[in-house]
Amino acid sequence: MTHKSNFPAPSVTTRPERDSLGQKDIPGNAYWGISTMRAVDNFPVSGRSIGSFRSLIWALGAIKYAAARANETLGLLPTDKSEAIQKASLEVMEGLFDDDFPVDRIQGGAGTSTNMNANEVIANRALEILGFNRGDYAQLHAIDHVNRSQSTNDVYPTAVKLAVQRDLAELLVEHAQLSDAFDAKSQEFAGIVKVGRTQLQDAVPMTLGQEFGAFAETLREDGYRLREVLPHLLESNLGATAIGTGITAPRGYREAVIAELGKVTGLELISATNLVEATGDTGVFLLVSGVLKRAAVKLSKVCNDLRLLSSGPQSGFGEISLPAVQAGSSIMPGKVNPVIPEMVNQVAFRIVGADATITMAVEAGQLQLNAFEPVMADALLESLAWLTVACRQLRTHCVQGINANVPLLAQRMAETISVVTGLSPLLGYSTAAELAKEALIYNRSISELVLSRGLLNEQQLAKALSPAVLAGLQ
Amino acid sequence: MTHKSNFPAPSVTTRPERDSLGQKDIPGNAYWGISTMRAVDNFPVSGRSIGSFRSLIWALGAIKYAAARANETLGLLPTDKSEAIQKASLEVMEGLFDDDFPVDRIQGGAGTSTNMNANEVIANRALEILGFNRGDYAQLHAIDHVNRSQSTNDVYPTAVKLAVQRDLAELLVEHAQLSDAFDAKSQEFAGIVKVGRTQLQDAVPMTLGQEFGAFAETLREDGYRLREVLPHLLESNLGATAIGTGITAPRGYREAVIAELGKVTGLELISATNLVEATGDTGVFLLVSGVLKRAAVKLSKVCNDLRLLSSGPQSGFGEISLPAVQAGSSIMPGKVNPVIPEMVNQVAFRIVGADATITMAVEAGQLQLNAFEPVMADALLESLAWLTVACRQLRTHCVQGINANVPLLAQRMAETISVVTGLSPLLGYSTAAELAKEALIYNRSISELVLSRGLLNEQQLAKALSPAVLAGLQ
Amino acid sequence: MTHKSNFPAPSVTTRPERDSLGQKDIPGNAYWGISTMRAVDNFPVSGRSIGSFRSLIWALGAIKYAAARANETLGLLPTDKSEAIQKASLEVMEGLFDDDFPVDRIQGGAGTSTNMNANEVIANRALEILGFNRGDYAQLHAIDHVNRSQSTNDVYPTAVKLAVQRDLAELLVEHAQLSDAFDAKSQEFAGIVKVGRTQLQDAVPMTLGQEFGAFAETLREDGYRLREVLPHLLESNLGATAIGTGITAPRGYREAVIAELGKVTGLELISATNLVEATGDTGVFLLVSGVLKRAAVKLSKVCNDLRLLSSGPQSGFGEISLPAVQAGSSIMPGKVNPVIPEMVNQVAFRIVGADATITMAVEAGQLQLNAFEPVMADALLESLAWLTVACRQLRTHCVQGINANVPLLAQRMAETISVVTGLSPLLGYSTAAELAKEALIYNRSISELVLSRGLLNEQQLAKALSPAVLAGLQ
Amino acid sequence: MTHKSNFPAPSVTTRPERDSLGQKDIPGNAYWGISTMRAVDNFPVSGRSIGSFRSLIWALGAIKYAAARANETLGLLPTDKSEAIQKASLEVMEGLFDDDFPVDRIQGGAGTSTNMNANEVIANRALEILGFNRGDYAQLHAIDHVNRSQSTNDVYPTAVKLAVQRDLAELLVEHAQLSDAFDAKSQEFAGIVKVGRTQLQDAVPMTLGQEFGAFAETLREDGYRLREVLPHLLESNLGATAIGTGITAPRGYREAVIAELGKVTGLELISATNLVEATGDTGVFLLVSGVLKRAAVKLSKVCNDLRLLSSGPQSGFGEISLPAVQAGSSIMPGKVNPVIPEMVNQVAFRIVGADATITMAVEAGQLQLNAFEPVMADALLESLAWLTVACRQLRTHCVQGINANVPLLAQRMAETISVVTGLSPLLGYSTAAELAKEALIYNRSISELVLSRGLLNEQQLAKALSPAVLAGLQ
Repeated sequence: MTHKSNFPAPSVTTRPERDSLGQKDIPGNAYWGISTMRAVDNFPVSGRSIGSFRSLIWALGAIKYAAARANETLGLLPTDKSEAIQKASLEVMEGLFDDDFPVDRIQGGAGTSTNMNANEVIANRALEILGFNRGDYAQLHAIDHVNRSQSTNDVYPTAVKLAVQRDLAELLVEHAQLSDAFDAKSQEFAGIVKVGRTQLQDAVPMTLGQEFGAFAETLREDGYRLREVLPHLLESNLGATAIGTGITAPRGYREAVIAELGKVTGLELISATNLVEATGDTGVFLLVSGVLKRAAVKLSKVCNDLRLLSSGPQSGFGEISLPAVQAGSSIMPGKVNPVIPEMVNQVAFRIVGADATITMAVEAGQLQLNAFEPVMADALLESLAWLTVACRQLRTHCVQGINANVPLLAQRMAETISVVTGLSPLLGYSTAAELAKEALIYNRSISELVLSRGLLNEQQLAKALSPAVLAGLQ
Repeated sequence: MTHKSNFPAPSVTTRPERDSLGQKDIPGNAYWGISTMRAVDNFPVSGRSIGSFRSLIWALGAIKYAAARANETLGLLPTDKSEAIQKASLEVMEGLFDDDFPVDRIQGGAGTSTNMNANEVIANRALEILGFNRGDYAQLHAIDHVNRSQSTNDVYPTAVKLAVQRDLAELLVEHAQLSDAFDAKSQEFAGIVKVGRTQLQDAVPMTLGQEFGAFAETLREDGYRLREVLPHLLESNLGATAIGTGITAPRGYREAVIAELGKVTGLELISATNLVEATGDTGVFLLVSGVLKRAAVKLSKVCNDLRLLSSGPQSGFGEISLPAVQAGSSIMPGKVNPVIPEMVNQVAFRIVGADATITMAVEAGQLQLNAFEPVMADALLESLAWLTVACRQLRTHCVQGINANVPLLAQRMAETISVVTGLSPLLGYSTAAELAKEALIYNRSISELVLSRGLLNEQQLAKALSPAVLAGLQ
Repeated sequence: MTHKSNFPAPSVTTRPERDSLGQKDIPGNAYWGISTMRAVDNFPVSGRSIGSFRSLIWALGAIKYAAARANETLGLLPTDKSEAIQKASLEVMEGLFDDDFPVDRIQGGAGTSTNMNANEVIANRALEILGFNRGDYAQLHAIDHVNRSQSTNDVYPTAVKLAVQRDLAELLVEHAQLSDAFDAKSQEFAGIVKVGRTQLQDAVPMTLGQEFGAFAETLREDGYRLREVLPHLLESNLGATAIGTGITAPRGYREAVIAELGKVTGLELISATNLVEATGDTGVFLLVSGVLKRAAVKLSKVCNDLRLLSSGPQSGFGEISLPAVQAGSSIMPGKVNPVIPEMVNQVAFRIVGADATITMAVEAGQLQLNAFEPVMADALLESLAWLTVACRQLRTHCVQGINANVPLLAQRMAETISVVTGLSPLLGYSTAAELAKEALIYNRSISELVLSRGLLNEQQLAKALSPAVLAGLQ
Repeated sequence: MTHKSNFPAPSVTTRPERDSLGQKDIPGNAYWGISTMRAVDNFPVSGRSIGSFRSLIWALGAIKYAAARANETLGLLPTDKSEAIQKASLEVMEGLFDDDFPVDRIQGGAGTSTNMNANEVIANRALEILGFNRGDYAQLHAIDHVNRSQSTNDVYPTAVKLAVQRDLAELLVEHAQLSDAFDAKSQEFAGIVKVGRTQLQDAVPMTLGQEFGAFAETLREDGYRLREVLPHLLESNLGATAIGTGITAPRGYREAVIAELGKVTGLELISATNLVEATGDTGVFLLVSGVLKRAAVKLSKVCNDLRLLSSGPQSGFGEISLPAVQAGSSIMPGKVNPVIPEMVNQVAFRIVGADATITMAVEAGQLQLNAFEPVMADALLESLAWLTVACRQLRTHCVQGINANVPLLAQRMAETISVVTGLSPLLGYSTAAELAKEALIYNRSISELVLSRGLLNEQQLAKALSPAVLAGLQ
């Protein structure tokens, strides 16, 4: 895997920065500083920067904005500094500085590098706003001012939760539209009777509309479950600072910052009740991941069914056809494959893997903090993004264009012995079972056998085997 | 693995039974019949019978009872037969026939063998009640009467859900008691100040009471989440019969059977809105499993912490001691190990595995049915039972007997440089960082350094470093 | 889940035993002692005792036998004591005392309880052999004599490895027979041409024999991979004692005990090269689990194919029929389901779960020991046993009775457009693709179209479309 | 997640291309064609193109080169066309066209889009070499010439295997260097005696050198296991074409293409024995993933140990210190965290997740093909790349700079009661256990107690408690 450099084009000038480990030369035009530089050097893992998570950067900007206002209100930050930080933070929220977040998504340090990247970018942009040079931290400091009353341990989990919340909300829109698309097909196919199957064996009649209606319903239920986890993402431990004891954060800060954050994001945030627990616990990500995994595997099951029902065109189930979106083969002329559902299956498999990752990461937390939130964020935000795309593509490139193979379905209904179950209450299970066996062996229809044996008259039979009755529509 | 036979001691006499595959000799004293016998022969997998799941047999009895009453009301079952089936079903509910459910927990057939085992036991017990011989199915038939208006596809999922619901309710009691036990310790340790840790590195002060309070809180939240899934287990697809179309079930049956089942179980059951979807979908088991897995890994994290905090006795953290419940070593005299938390960890690992199993099983469903519910039931009911035991043992054999190592904790607080964070708002981050570095290198206390440099006076220092302030208690 | 008590019927008399935690009354007739009793009390988790793992008890007996001989040779154990221990150990190996191993499979303590259960049973049986009373440990001591030169930390991992080795060897026999059964079917079906499928879409022709031959081959390869892990299970850390430094074990013991163990088991054991590493590392179980999981999911894939190919009987693929082994439905008369493959699928899902469990357990090891070997043993030995049964049942109850639906396959071959690929090298991909499209739309055969357009003459066409050529047989 | 467009800057001109679905306008300067364009439109999933997998593009180039030479030799391709294709393929191998592979890594279609992307780029580059315009496929065709005698179903799996092989070989180098780094530390720490621990409790003495030696050894064993899977990656199904029957590939092609591919890659390739099995089976990726997962979780365990041993600096184990690579906290001055091991842990968790993904994907294969190889490739190649980085960073940024805290270790050895095990063979387990208990309670040393009770004389004691003896060095 080759990684493009996360760094901007080299700057002609550099500025020196110092931290407790020593001095480094930073490109003069960089908004980030020495902490970011060390992090980029330490974690060249995935080649994908945190800046590629739009929702995460948005959330970081919002938190820094809210903290500045809370600190100002409490008299901890002079107005000019606060306003510069607020302006810079809003710009970060909007996405103007995504490229200035080069730290790798996979990072040690429990998110400290992400938080410091934000602190540094906002500090330098605020310095610029105030008319100072970048790096002139004596005027405005990344930690003492931008990070005032905060710790990575409350900023980072809150940011990840808000990011997950935002991406989950976006997924819900696509997911609902996919469900609606199945519903539309359910209406379209309402009158088409077919053989239902259990354990891949012909069972009893149903309509194709019922089948697609079940797809819609099963997705809709996942939508409900996903929606139910949203409030848990709105519980923030801001004010907890390092381990939940609130060290360095003054009285009143907690309430103030939550209020400001609610305002700038438009979300109904609440403060966690037990800040020590809230700071160390990452269970919310496993909660989301569990429900997301459910949605993914159930969608995968639906895609398996679509692939199965469209198998053929000649030697398979052949009941429906999926729209052709690309040539299917580099060797077999004319072949068309169910490539969109196959893609969705693979997204689901990745999400199952992401849940395994998150499970291990949550279990690995120790004492007052879980150091492995970055990999949870990476796995979860990626899963959300991919599933959103998968839902969209499945709807637009597949479901909306599905056609029923009406003649084939009709022919099968005419021949099927699966109607025999409808006679069971009238004739008893054992007699019905014998009829079924005989029909299959001698290739005769159930109706034929029933009439020839005088078990029912034509009228009784017609009523018992009415498609609408069998499919439970009447 | 050696399996004890699931069969009763051989009967002197036998009775012949027939099904569509042919005839078999059944032990004369067996309540089960030919379907059960074939299933036992087909699935000798785990050596653990469905009869060992008390809650599942209870649920099957309840459903068969409710169905008999509903069928009777609708005129589909004569009163004498219905009453005999009801009586037999109640006995099954109570547990009088658990040994007569020899079918293996791991079975193909989507639960048909489990349902037939119930049908056969109840039919033969009802025959006995009515004064007929076992096997005299012309008088009362396992399918035509006991299974009337039903299919495995609605009976079995409903039974598994009720069983899971019952075992989950039992877990919740133990889980809450464990949480309470941690709360009690939190009270007991409320006044003990210690060094909190992030990323295993000394962070800032807190109390041991806060630490145990977080354990209590994090478990309590899992209790809430687990409780929230209970209603989903009360949604039943009874009346759906084979694939949700309700074939063979008369109008009114669905409402009647749900009402009867609610009465006999005392549970607030509801009928699924889309029976086709409800019959094929097994997502509820993944929902429960996901939340259960979360509870398990979070409990595992707590146990990891207990093991870490009690590491030593000399060369470890040594902050607490767990009660000794057995000698720790066959070679190292006097060694005592954290065996109870270790057991809980392993239960958690099994539950993570169970979730992987259930995930694959849910994804593998096809079209109108998921054939793999038996393995979901096995994995989920086992997980619930094990976690219940784990919570109980952890409470009674470990948490209740935990002691704090007060002198050691006090000594560490006296020496720790972790208090320096409390000075950061007063002195600035950079100055505080230098103090911390120097204190560690030259083995001097933070207070000493601050005073010798004249950064603060004694009064200021005393206030800033008050344990109560640092731990966020004031 | 109701657990039968693991204890024998209560004894009239009791004997007192002491350990470092105090005194307990032991049933007078029990071979096990106080350590076992405490363990049974501490770990009432699964209700399944270690005594139900025949291979594990066999291995423990063998190790204790070998240790006694090595200790005797090195002058650490008097001949009479040694011989009594040897005799008792051989009896344990044979299985005479399986019921005296009541400790739960899921246990804390890194296997100490299992080791002590063995030490106690062998000590008391040896005391009996020597004419002393059970519990008279002054004469022969469970630790000082039976456990001499040993630690749980070398005995237990070695025992688990030998147990896994033995059960894996047993699996290999069944697995090979299953592969052979597929090979036999491959021969039987060698001449039956059919449409091969990729991505569930009709692809190009092949024979049913080739399809079943691939099943045989894919299983055979797993057999090879499984066989390759056997030697890793024969590497023992005996002599390492507590943490690999060999404390308490005299010079020469390590070589002697390995030699004796090799003799009594008939296995080519080797001594680990780095005993510290070998004692803490449990990677071998993950190695086995990984390969076992592969075998399981590949077998699951084969079962999926069997279920798919036999789907129908009328509205599915219907190419083969599986033998009916039980009635398929409690509602649908005459239905026959693929219950044996479904059972195998579920076993595979459980094995995937077991691998997740083992993965977490291996990762959770700390410093010089992994405390979680018991759950690895439980998961792995269970997986091996279940897969062995699954292979046997699949062979005897399914594969051997599979029939091909020859007329249907012939009809499909006559109609299929999948032969068009054979013309691609002659006509070019684009022309062939057009032919395929036209054939499907207008329901005409490829041959017809080729001839009507004069693209090839009859002779050329016959050669190009010969089934044998298309299936790659010529 | 915001995705940068995978497309080149818009071209002023376009060229029309056609496939069986219709016509599309392709940017005039694009090397790829209509199939690639459709794929990019269909699969906008991850935003990461296949071109970012250097090893995969290298492999595709090699295969196309080898196929061209084989086809030429067999008379299926004119020399000029063949030479142009060869030259273009070699350029692809070298990496000159990585940016021209914009298809997303997550794609439906079993790799067809990847194969077609290669066919199209090579065709257009070959056209350019021959002096024709891009898109002039009448002169040289992506399928009829570049893909001659091939199918995605043999090209793609072979390409993925070669890519995995190459990246695995690269990992092995880094992995071995990491192991060596631990060995160097083992030498450095050879003389430092410390307390070994089992179950986090003080056990018996050992050296820090032994501890690091075990780290080296445990990694080395993973190196061996990883190396053993390499040959399985060299087994190719080239010549199998669509489903293993070799349709469209002439006699001799299979041997010729394998020979050519071996030459151009320098690898000892072999041809699969059963091409039908080899085409449908993806077990090799699960084999690699299983061993890779083992390596990852064992490395994670080592990192857990490093974090634990370096916990502190004051209130933890504190036995070693890791080099500081960045400031640890945005709130706690002077804090240094184990960020590199934490990063490695997270990479391991991702690899565990990747294995779950691959497991599901392998199981999901159906009949003659597994459509889900792209997600296997994505998960596996990513895992290999990340683990390679993790090993490198862990070595250079952590292990090489680890220091031992010698004074603390010495002090603990002076005080530890863990030496008591060394006296067990001399005094008996029970007496030794009493000594240990007393020493701990009354805070006295073992030596003191032994001498005061006259259990051993000073000379005996000195010999028994010699650090070298206890650590098994003598």
